Order: sequence, then structure tokens, then C-alpha cells
Amino acid sequence: MLHAVIMAGGSGTRFWPASRRHLPKQLLTLATETPLLRMTFERLGDLVPVDRVWVVTTAETAEATRNVLPELPPENTLSEPLGRNTAACAGLAACAAQKADPEAVCIVLPADHIIGEEARFRAAMAAGAAFVSREGGLLTFGVRPTRPETGYGYLELGPEHTHEGEWSVHRLRRFVEKPDVDRARTYLESGGHLWNAGIFAWRATTLLEEIRRQIPDLAIGLDRIGEALGTDESDAVLSQVYPSLPSTSLDFGIMEGAERLWTVPVDFPWSDVGSWSALAETLTPDATGNAVRGRVQAIDAGGNVLVSTGPVVSVVGVDNVVVVATPDAVLVVPKDQAQRVKEVVEGLREKGWDDVL
Amino acid sequence: MLHAVIMAGGSGTRFWPASRRHLPKQLLTLATETPLLRMTFERLGDLVPVDRVWVVTTAETAEATRNVLPELPPENTLSEPLGRNTAACAGLAACAAQKADPEAVCIVLPADHIIGEEARFRAAMAAGAAFVSREGGLLTFGVRPTRPETGYGYLELGPEHTHEGEWSVHRLRRFVEKPDVDRARTYLESGGHLWNAGIFAWRATTLLEEIRRQIPDLAIGLDRIGEALGTDESDAVLSQVYPSLPSTSLDFGIMEGAERLWTVPVDFPWSDVGSWSALAETLTPDATGNAVRGRVQAIDAGGNVLVSTGPVVSVVGVDNVVVVATPDAVLVVPKDQAQRVKEVVEGLREKGWDDVL
Repeated sequence: MLHAVIMAGGSGTRFWPASRRHLPKQLLTLATETPLLRMTFERLGDLVPVDRVWVVTTAETAEATRNVLPELPPENTLSEPLGRNTAACAGLAACAAQKADPEAVCIVLPADHIIGEEARFRAAMAAGAAFVSREGGLLTFGVRPTRPETGYGYLELGPEHTHEGEWSVHRLRRFVEKPDVDRARTYLESGGHLWNAGIFAWRATTLLEEIRRQIPDLAIGLDRIGEALGTDESDAVLSQVYPSLPSTSLDFGIMEGAERLWTVPVDFPWSDVGSWSALAETLTPDATGNAVRGRVQAIDAGGNVLVSTGPVVSVVGVDNVVVVATPDAVLVVPKDQAQRVKEVVEGLREKGWDDVL
Repeated sequence: MLHAVIMAGGSGTRFWPASRRHLPKQLLTLATETPLLRMTFERLGDLVPVDRVWVVTTAETAEATRNVLPELPPENTLSEPLGRNTAACAGLAACAAQKADPEAVCIVLPADHIIGEEARFRAAMAAGAAFVSREGGLLTFGVRPTRPETGYGYLELGPEHTHEGEWSVHRLRRFVEKPDVDRARTYLESGGHLWNAGIFAWRATTLLEEIRRQIPDLAIGLDRIGEALGTDESDAVLSQVYPSLPSTSLDFGIMEGAERLWTVPVDFPWSDVGSWSALAETLTPDATGNAVRGRVQAIDAGGNVLVSTGPVVSVVGVDNVVVVATPDAVLVVPKDQAQRVKEVVEGLREKGWDDVL
């Protein structure tokens, strides 16, 4: 049966000062009144019943995650004692799904993206899942580029293999790191590359077999965890075993070396909401031409991202700037340098101002 | 004897969000750890004993004023029930000083300016006071311009009348409103104009006589207040009479029409600290080239004014901007538009966000 795995273990810093160690991006209300995690869950609609939704989170955010998804059965929250990258995370979810349902087919979704045309999203997920359920292999969904984006990784399309309903299924030739702008333009024009959205489909058994073949140490650890899941010893074994698992990503640790690798091009609106400026693109500007959240006043100022979780923010005579204010921290950065939030967080750590991290 | 009157009734908005209705500029710690009012008081040094220092404040800020100046005798704080402009304010102080000392000579000082070379300042004050004590009239101190400033009013020098020690005393020809930049340049080059620093000297009786001659209604009100000062009825009479006093400025309501009007050019460093950018000029930039107060981080950013009274402020890739943060309000404005804080405060009032005013 179809299962959905929501990977909610992120603890990124790209939305500082709104995001914090204990309040990562997927738990924030950035673009709407609803946290991205909740949006991701609700987007599943009738695709998967709630008892077949698995959410992988961290010890630090497990409670907040359960509060955002109160209808999720407690045993469906899988809490990583600490992050071991996406291969371990997806492996853990596959263990849990397979234990509950030996025939489990998983779609795997990041918790912190924004996706439009949700019915179309669900149709694509259903098609990809039906395909891998029948033919096996590891499948990744790729978003058709609409601009020469240099902030995303890409998927290089191989030859078309078949159709699944209206969706074409291609061989996946390889994963491509973030390109420079010239290369990104070529990708856009050729049509041979897709944005790597980090959305996957596979049978749980297929993923676990690939892990066993390619990363045997990970498989051994997951076997021990899988035995304990659902028993009284579950937490103890997780705490003991998980931290020692090999840390590697799904894309490069498993997908690239997998025996049968597929990709389904999709065209629903998608954003990984990777920065304040990316967020701004998902918001409708207000009458003053600014993307605004909270009590904000803009005078003779346009093209700004003005976000407050409390303080009144007033800007005058300033354009194309990100201003984010919380009661204990404020960020000001030009919109086209929004990715430099990382430097800010590093700087705060160096100064020892951990209270605002 | 010599008395000092500190006019501390201001409730300006030019330092929002640091300044608020109940926390005007003179009570803030902006440039140093010491509020400007306290600096003004301490600058008097041994010029005047504390029982001859009079501080005119408002009902709203009287308590905070007394906390900043705990050594001031309680009866030397004169609290305006509401502001009636500088003529009434100086008149009230003259009443109090004259009642305590019929021969009182007052120097009158704004509470919220920054002045350097304090010994020189005191020498100038003593000279001006000695002159008016002997010769009468109303005297204003004028600061020799060092740049073509368009943000100040000016004093047009008349012919030199005499010397008081090393200080020359001129007739004052007239008060000049804030000039445009061409006129300000002419003033700077000709040497015939001084910055109007709002610092005065007179015998208390001289001021009260001029008030009686030029604004009889104000004199009548001040007579009633003067009788009550120091008695049990003082507060009641002030509350009753003060709000009905004519509201006019010292400069244009009394000085311009006065019979004998003097000015003493002075050359001590002086700033009225009229905006965040003016404040920045009084601060020494830190290693990153920014004028900084509080927990602030600047990355690849210079020439900024970064002030926090609590939140951590981080700026990246931003130059020549004012960022001021308090726990409940944030301001971002280019340094050369800092005077637009007025628009911000007006805007907040229109929005009904009075909690941050």
C-alpha cells in the first residue's frame, strides 16, 4: 500500500532570526498562517490515510512536530536522536513502513517546500508510486525548470522508458550539482535537465536492498533498529544505534549507485523556499510593493521583504532589502544577498551569542 | 547669584524607536552610558551649586528626571502640566529662581545637546552671565559654524559692543530660520552668522519684565504661579494656570522684540544631536566602520548607525543605513534620510499603533 514519508529533520539556519535551533523552517509560519510541515501533510489529501504517514523528525523538534500534526498516530513520528543525513533518515522510515506493511510503497517528501496545484501534485505522486510498485527501482521526481536557477541541484534526464498514465518515466542519467548561470541557461534551453526537488518514490524493500548493497554498515544498524521499532526498547535502541550510522545523502550515497533509477518530470509550481528572497517570490506584494508579514510600515520603500514576529518594523526610503525582526533579533540584508544569512549565523556563533541561535 | 535652568520638557520623536512619549531624548543613553540630561547637569561642574540648578520637565517625565538627577532638591524640579513652548518654560524657571533669589542671573540650557571642551563652555557661560548681571538685556550664545549646516537656525551678528574677558559681546541683529545650502555657505564664509544653540543668559527680572511688556497674558499667569511656588498650593495652581498660558517660543516671542539683545560667539564643540545621523557624528566608529551601540554584528557593511537596546542586530552587505532596534520596534532608514523618522512616527499614529509611540 502507499505510504508517505515526510522528512522533517531539518534544522537549517537560512531563515534566521525567525528560525532557531528549536524552531526550524518547517515549523515556522512563513508564507501563510500554517507551518510548512502542516502544509506538506495537508497536501497529501486523500492520497494516503494518516496511519500510513511517517514523519521523521529530531529529538529537539519531536514535540513541536507532534503539536503541528496532532492527528498523526504517535508511533508514526520517528525521532532521530541526532541527524545522520538523508540516507539514514529515509532508511529509518523504510524500516518503519515495511514493518507495518511488507508491501509498503513510499513517497518521500521534504517537509519544508511550497507546492502549488496540489491535485496535480497528488496525481504525479500516485503515478510514480504505481510505477515503482510494479517495476521496482528508485524514482525521483524532477521539476521542469522555469528559469536559469543556480541555487538548485539538477537531474540529467536519460531516455524515456515508458508512460505511467499521462506521466512519462525516464531513466535518470545522473545528479548534477548546482550549476553556474551559463550552465543553468543551457539546462533551461535544452530541456534535458530537471530541478532536483528531493521528492522520491520506491518500495520500502527496494530502498533497504540498495542500502544493504551499497552501505552495508547502514543496513546492519537499520536491522537492529527495525527489530526494536514498536517495542518497549525502541527508544533505547534508536538512541544507541542511530548516532553510529554512516552519514551520507540519499542522492549521492544511494541514488547515484542504484541499479534502476527513474525520474518523472513534473510541472506543478514548486519552491524549496531556500532563502528570504525565495520566500518573497511566493508572497503577494502588498499595496506598497513589499512582501510583508506582521506589523510593518513601509514609507517610500518597495521590493522589500519585511517580516516581523512581534516588533513593529518601520522602513523609510529603502528598496529591495530583507528586514526580519523578532523580539530578540533583527536581520537586515539586501534581497540579492539573502543567502548570506549563513554568515550571520556563523558570526553569531563565533561571538558566543548562542541565545539567539 | 548665578542659576542654571535646564529645559528638559522635550518630547521629540526624532530618536524613535529609542525615544518614546515617556522616554524623550534627554533621558536616553544614546551616545554614552549617561543620559544627555545627566551630561548637561554634570557639565555645569562647579559653575553653579546644585540648589541653584532648576530643571523644567513635564508631568510625564518628572519622575524619570528626578531619578536621573537624584541630588537635585525636589523643589528645583519644575514640572509643566503640559508643554506651552519655551517662553512659558523659561518664564516659569525665572519665577522660581527669582523667588529663591531676587538677584538671580540665569543661564538657560537645553537638556539634550552634546557639548565638548566643558571648561571652555563654563568660562563662556560665566562671562555671559557676568555681562547681563551688570548690563542687563537678553543674551544668546551662538556657535561659530564649522560647516554649511541647513538643519540649524542662525543668529545674525550685529556690531561688537564690548568684551567680557576674552569673549566678545555683540548686538544681535536677528534670528534667521534654517537656510538653504547656498545661504548656509554664505553664512559660513562671511562669518557674520552663528548657529542658534538655544543657550541664553539673563537676569530673571529682565526676562520677566520683557514677558510683561511683550506677552502680558503670560506675565499675569506667571505671577499667579510665582505666588504659589513653594507653597502647598503650588501643584494645584500650576495645573490650573499653566495650560492656559500663551504658547510661544523664546526666540520669536520674546528675544526678537526685546529692547537689548546680545550675542556671544562661542567655539566649543556643540551638537543638538537632532537625528540618528547627527548622533553618529558624535560616536567613534568601531573596527567595521560603523557607529554601534548594543549587541550588533556588521558583515561587509560600513558607514552604518546600528543601535540596539536589546535585540541582536545583524546587518550584511548594507552601507550608510540607520538600524535601530528595541524589543518592540525596529527602524531602518538611509542615514541621509534620518530626519524622516517624523514620517514614521506620524504613520504609526495613523495606524493606531500607539503602543510603540
